[in-house]
Amino acid sequence: MKHLLSMEDLSTLEIEQLLDRAAYFKQGGKLEGDKKLYAVNMFFEPSTRTHHSFEMAEKKLGIETISFEPGESSVTKGETLYDTVLTMQALGVDIAVIRHKEEHYYEPLKALDIHVINGGDGCGQHPSQCLLDLFTIKEEFGTFSGKKVVICGDILHSRVANSNMQVLKRLGADIYFSGPREWFDASCAAYGTYLDIDQVVEVADVLMLLRVQHERHQADGAVFSKADYHAQYGLTIERAAKMKKDAIIMHPSPVNRDVEIAGCLVESEQSRIVAQMQNGVFMRMAILEAVLNEKEAEMRVCTL
Amino acid sequence: MKHLLSMEDLSTLEIEQLLDRAAYFKQGGKLEGDKKLYAVNMFFEPSTRTHHSFEMAEKKLGIETISFEPGESSVTKGETLYDTVLTMQALGVDIAVIRHKEEHYYEPLKALDIHVINGGDGCGQHPSQCLLDLFTIKEEFGTFSGKKVVICGDILHSRVANSNMQVLKRLGADIYFSGPREWFDASCAAYGTYLDIDQVVEVADVLMLLRVQHERHQADGAVFSKADYHAQYGLTIERAAKMKKDAIIMHPSPVNRDVEIAGCLVESEQSRIVAQMQNGVFMRMAILEAVLNEKEAEMRVCTL
Amino acid sequence: MKHLLSMEDLSTLEIEQLLDRAAYFKQGGKLEGDKKLYAVNMFFEPSTRTHHSFEMAEKKLGIETISFEPGESSVTKGETLYDTVLTMQALGVDIAVIRHKEEHYYEPLKALDIHVINGGDGCGQHPSQCLLDLFTIKEEFGTFSGKKVVICGDILHSRVANSNMQVLKRLGADIYFSGPREWFDASCAAYGTYLDIDQVVEVADVLMLLRVQHERHQADGAVFSKADYHAQYGLTIERAAKMKKDAIIMHPSPVNRDVEIAGCLVESEQSRIVAQMQNGVFMRMAILEAVLNEKEAEMRVCTL
Repeated sequence: MKHLLSMEDLSTLEIEQLLDRAAYFKQGGKLEGDKKLYAVNMFFEPSTRTHHSFEMAEKKLGIETISFEPGESSVTKGETLYDTVLTMQALGVDIAVIRHKEEHYYEPLKALDIHVINGGDGCGQHPSQCLLDLFTIKEEFGTFSGKKVVICGDILHSRVANSNMQVLKRLGADIYFSGPREWFDASCAAYGTYLDIDQVVEVADVLMLLRVQHERHQADGAVFSKADYHAQYGLTIERAAKMKKDAIIMHPSPVNRDVEIAGCLVESEQSRIVAQMQNGVFMRMAILEAVLNEKEAEMRVCTL
Repeated sequence: MKHLLSMEDLSTLEIEQLLDRAAYFKQGGKLEGDKKLYAVNMFFEPSTRTHHSFEMAEKKLGIETISFEPGESSVTKGETLYDTVLTMQALGVDIAVIRHKEEHYYEPLKALDIHVINGGDGCGQHPSQCLLDLFTIKEEFGTFSGKKVVICGDILHSRVANSNMQVLKRLGADIYFSGPREWFDASCAAYGTYLDIDQVVEVADVLMLLRVQHERHQADGAVFSKADYHAQYGLTIERAAKMKKDAIIMHPSPVNRDVEIAGCLVESEQSRIVAQMQNGVFMRMAILEAVLNEKEAEMRVCTL
Repeated sequence: MKHLLSMEDLSTLEIEQLLDRAAYFKQGGKLEGDKKLYAVNMFFEPSTRTHHSFEMAEKKLGIETISFEPGESSVTKGETLYDTVLTMQALGVDIAVIRHKEEHYYEPLKALDIHVINGGDGCGQHPSQCLLDLFTIKEEFGTFSGKKVVICGDILHSRVANSNMQVLKRLGADIYFSGPREWFDASCAAYGTYLDIDQVVEVADVLMLLRVQHERHQADGAVFSKADYHAQYGLTIERAAKMKKDAIIMHPSPVNRDVEIAGCLVESEQSRIVAQMQNGVFMRMAILEAVLNEKEAEMRVCTL
């Protein structure tokens, strides 16, 4: 695994190995080797969790973090992403974690020697979020097989929904969708069935709520008032009361409180929203280790 | 001391202990224990001294610093301060140093497990500045008792004036105020007497000048020209010559040179303005240690 | 060497020592001593290479880096550069690496105890870029003597051209200039001869291309279309084919691909553009060491 760009690139075995290593780090495991390593976190779109979760994972692994602010870099003088990442490679940086608004921004970067980890590409993939979601589900149930997972909300524009529906089905879960019908795409029908929110709360083992991305919807006019969305499609207190007792609530955050979910449910007993953030650090440690192992493997080949 | 939010929360004993520990760190003292600790400095308003003084204190104590830029975080997508700090806690961050324009922003954060240190809340409190001022005065005179401290300038809008007048009086100093009359509030009269600048320079042991916050005054219309302010209320070279020989000049910085104080007096022999910045690092080491000791104490309780 | 401000301050011996130490660091050499040291990188103009190259050099030397964002500092409240750097000194920072748009910004800073390294002053000097260029040429040819170096492009506005023409001549190279005639200044004639690009590609040992600074030219109206500049003054594929086989191509970056140079030549066999970025880290390690040695020397004097 030289880069981590898309969930589609990962075999089921690789996913399972990542889940095992995240569990190892969560139990206090350490990275082997004492080579000094460098990572740069290049976030061209705002982020709190993904950015600082990777930073925390780097620090816990003893990897040095190089700072990078797009607005103070030569990107402002028109330097391309390729030339910027080439620069980081030339400076001796081992890993670039990148979030960029352009889908598939990483294609030209595959030619570089630096390891690229995709921290989100537009409406495309967000593999580290997907993997930490998998880790959180497996930690809860020990398996994916036969679990009823409902993805609810802005499926069309969601990096998370895209990655999750494909890989969860591959791992044996049963997928359902909910939320506004106009955000349910024919392409999703291959992965699961659309159900009304009042139906899904009774059947779901995992209720994955997605963020309503107000900032993306202002352009296309499909705007709900917050109260309307909550009443029609959100997890209200009343709906939450109908959930199975061992079912869990997930959300990639940031949460719009009282839109996708009633504010008081965010830190409730059935919610795993805080656990997802905690697990994100350990999964990202596993991802960083995995791309560095590839480096080690390359270096071993070179010295033969 | 789980958090440091306001000087009002501190007992006189706690203040004295912080002053002692700052002196210990100034003499090269080290933090005990070898646990890896993490802090995040969240400055939602501009800062050079407070921000980087905390960062330096963290580095000197061996605490890892997590980066945070409000403008590149999910705050731009509407995430609340509570949810942002909750995220930092979930990522494993031990301490959040926060500056925010809203007074008492920290109230909802008290429920969190992360330690919050107030780096300034609007026109409210700025306890670490207050404590470093106390440290600088005690270092000079060995006591507060009977020392004549003049707070001069924009008392109404100053976080520093608010904290300092209360605690200095509590510690036995005699408080006076100077500066424009319209910035002297009836509420201050409980703490000290208003005097003209030409009177106070002759009696003061400590002359604490406050910054004229042009950026806050443009709204309320109480604007002086820089030269007028300096002539009427500032520490001119002439006035400085009338000060007692062992009196000291203080200012929380940034200084408006030739407004509150003649530029050439900033680094003069009686000025402690640079010493305040130096002492700030040691006092912040003491503050960080104090909240971490609370963590240790909690952990000891848990393991019993 | 207390500061590094301008190439003009450096003797030929000092330059040679810096080149030797950069080679030492490139071979994996380490900094001696175990004192904890602190640097701050203050970039008031955008930068990717210089900023992060210094940061990387600091990390490789074990120097702690203090963060600094001009837009989030008290500079936004009108604090001067002098007072900002004085603050950094008071906080205990040993070295300030500064880029600032004002030429000779560093003059008032010479009085401070903190070591100042000039990361570029307006259209003035950029000594660390100059030194890494020298290092790259010496690494290639072992000498400067008699080597034909062509500086091609926006000579008038270039920090790099200014420093390089003077020092390369001093070290024995033969200097030529090319690019638009109107950007060739009478003051350059003292250092070398102007030649047409089609002539120079055949004689050059080193072809140093400069960046067309579109952002600076929009003001003065001397604007070329990108295609026009490339055709008339750029290194096209056809021109590159006429170069001597052991000649090298250099560029300080960021490159405007297909303006100064055909995009496909950037990573070509004769290009040293990536090597310049790699060498920059090692040269900056040598520069940091040099100013710190001065500190050591001062401290030895003090303890006698």
